[in-house]
Amino acid sequence: VVTLTTDFGLAGHHAGVVKGVILGCNPAARLVDLSHAIPPGDLREAAWTLLWSWRFFPPGTIHLAVVDPGVGSPRRPLAASAGGHFFVGPDNGVLDPVLAAAGKAVAVGIDVRIPHHRLSSTFHGRDVFAPTVGRLSLGVPLRSLGEPVADRVRLELPQPRAIAPGVMEGEVIAVDRWGNLVTSLTAEALGEGGVRRDAAIRIGRRTVRGIGEYYAQAAAGAPVAVVNSNDHLEVAVNRGDAARTFHAGRGTRVVLSPATPRRSPPPAGKPRKDR
Amino acid sequence: VVTLTTDFGLAGHHAGVVKGVILGCNPAARLVDLSHAIPPGDLREAAWTLLWSWRFFPPGTIHLAVVDPGVGSPRRPLAASAGGHFFVGPDNGVLDPVLAAAGKAVAVGIDVRIPHHRLSSTFHGRDVFAPTVGRLSLGVPLRSLGEPVADRVRLELPQPRAIAPGVMEGEVIAVDRWGNLVTSLTAEALGEGGVRRDAAIRIGRRTVRGIGEYYAQAAAGAPVAVVNSNDHLEVAVNRGDAARTFHAGRGTRVVLSPATPRRSPPPAGKPRKDR
Amino acid sequence: VVTLTTDFGLAGHHAGVVKGVILGCNPAARLVDLSHAIPPGDLREAAWTLLWSWRFFPPGTIHLAVVDPGVGSPRRPLAASAGGHFFVGPDNGVLDPVLAAAGKAVAVGIDVRIPHHRLSSTFHGRDVFAPTVGRLSLGVPLRSLGEPVADRVRLELPQPRAIAPGVMEGEVIAVDRWGNLVTSLTAEALGEGGVRRDAAIRIGRRTVRGIGEYYAQAAAGAPVAVVNSNDHLEVAVNRGDAARTFHAGRGTRVVLSPATPRRSPPPAGKPRKDR
Repeated sequence: VVTLTTDFGLAGHHAGVVKGVILGCNPAARLVDLSHAIPPGDLREAAWTLLWSWRFFPPGTIHLAVVDPGVGSPRRPLAASAGGHFFVGPDNGVLDPVLAAAGKAVAVGIDVRIPHHRLSSTFHGRDVFAPTVGRLSLGVPLRSLGEPVADRVRLELPQPRAIAPGVMEGEVIAVDRWGNLVTSLTAEALGEGGVRRDAAIRIGRRTVRGIGEYYAQAAAGAPVAVVNSNDHLEVAVNRGDAARTFHAGRGTRVVLSPATPRRSPPPAGKPRKDR
Repeated sequence: VVTLTTDFGLAGHHAGVVKGVILGCNPAARLVDLSHAIPPGDLREAAWTLLWSWRFFPPGTIHLAVVDPGVGSPRRPLAASAGGHFFVGPDNGVLDPVLAAAGKAVAVGIDVRIPHHRLSSTFHGRDVFAPTVGRLSLGVPLRSLGEPVADRVRLELPQPRAIAPGVMEGEVIAVDRWGNLVTSLTAEALGEGGVRRDAAIRIGRRTVRGIGEYYAQAAAGAPVAVVNSNDHLEVAVNRGDAARTFHAGRGTRVVLSPATPRRSPPPAGKPRKDR
Repeated sequence: VVTLTTDFGLAGHHAGVVKGVILGCNPAARLVDLSHAIPPGDLREAAWTLLWSWRFFPPGTIHLAVVDPGVGSPRRPLAASAGGHFFVGPDNGVLDPVLAAAGKAVAVGIDVRIPHHRLSSTFHGRDVFAPTVGRLSLGVPLRSLGEPVADRVRLELPQPRAIAPGVMEGEVIAVDRWGNLVTSLTAEALGEGGVRRDAAIRIGRRTVRGIGEYYAQAAAGAPVAVVNSNDHLEVAVNRGDAARTFHAGRGTRVVLSPATPRRSPPPAGKPRKDR
């Protein structure tokens, strides 16, 4: 199985041509689009897409990510294994978060002298990455594709931070098709107590009180916060569009607090337990 | 073969992840997108998509439909067989019209305790429906997936009605990519005589006279009515956009009348024969 | 392998149904979308898509192109072989450029009496072309599908022309997802000397000086011209959108001149050599 995550869009021939080259190498490859609608050059969105997808594919899946504004420049092309999967793409950070999450990452810089078609300077998806995916899918060992890379380019994704005891600050990291606001606040980041059901989420100038179990718990048109399928806190409007309702988008600040906002921290020496 | 009809959109990771889970269950599944561009929560458009597609797939095809605003709520997940095909989706009406059309429908409520990944409350496409599709594709019997359901949720699609002898009223049910207006008036609904070639179609304030054989019969920019590939009466503008020309969209009223509008019904006792 | 290039869009059921019919004929067919986002009726864009894609697929691939405003009219349906690949689509010019480029083209007019489903007058992708693709993929000989066609409909694509010694005039033929302006000026058309690195490209009222190797050579926001992966001269803005920056789109005139514009042609009898 091979997945594709690119900023090629759906109108052009680029995604199809990449698939043609892969199938030319390995006619038995099974190709699955994750997204070709990554905004041009948006490494973060591609990184989140990979993070929220890779583990749901069978072991040995090859994940190709081509968001590559530096195509043709000396930036390195990368092939890697991590968590029992393979990852292929430019060394510009797009693969970094998923390699870190999958664990035990081994990466090589792809040797582009391996002959295949011509080597253009504008379409390495076709000329470098697709042939690499084809070779990996045929069982060619990763280490034979190029020299090991130990200093891959890093990409920092927004992380939530505690700004007061029990108060976490994060931001909107994605707006999905239904207008739901996916935040950087994860159940894991919220600590041992997990998500308090009675917490309040401030987003822009508005506050959503309480964290529910599912969208339809709220009345139609009413806001609801839930922990989504990737463990991220999400603000939605049941049968509505939270992004529009809250005038929010990627980067909008989100603050999670206990239900009754505290004006001062708890007295020293008296540890507070939220649960 | 597995088809997918969802309101996931093409930008997110959702459709890809559903495919990953299916391929994890059954690497030999052949996946075909019908549409991921169903407007959020639009059960009718998903139902029409299934109705106009299912019979063109080989027997035994599994059709997955995920338009599911009630995800995570107590609404039932459904798996069904009808007309030699399988259908999987939430019990909110989205599958009802195609099950009725395919005939001999047998439905079960999917037992979600069947273990697979975690069970989120926001993404049953991944956690409930995809594993069910995987199992069905491996030959697991439908009845082993859960308890029979006899009272599935119904969904009424717009039906044409006679408002005077020979005069049928319907509405626009879909606007396709070319701006063609697909109406609820079917050749079948128009009765034994079928579609009169000299009928007049009133749509909004305008009237199209005569029903043609194909789009290019009309001059470029001129309107033309045809019976389309799914037996629905359709109003088009050759090499143009009927939706724009007629200021029409889903729900716009359409009236089909004999060419010369009759002011009174035909005399009693003298049966009228349109053809 | 079967590729699909259509103006069906991604919202409707049309692309999925075509795939269903193909898989019904041949369950082993491997389907790859080139594009379903060809603007309605846009034969040129479909022709470019095929030209820039076909050679990257394995020999024997069947390329289906359905951009067919004349569907249902007496226009002929075509099946052809050229360059070791197969091509299927309406005889309206959409296949002409790729057949000419692939070479040794043999075409037949598809006999639509070959029974398959019903024959609608609005969806030959489903009723004529998909069954033809299915048959070809099963090894049915091309010549058994219908009578030879020697006078296929031609389609002229914009060709660059010399307007003065060393000065070539062309136009923008495509705008890709990143806003890059793909021009009709090809390395081949620029003659034996190929592309002069010090050339100037005038596009609308602005001029880009010099032809670079890759996008990221320019500063962020600065324009850069490159020869793209299909040998077309392309004007881009690094990490920007050239179409917006240059107020340019399909059809915008582009003039390539030597770096220092000449006011008069070189003296007669003294052949100029650019390289």
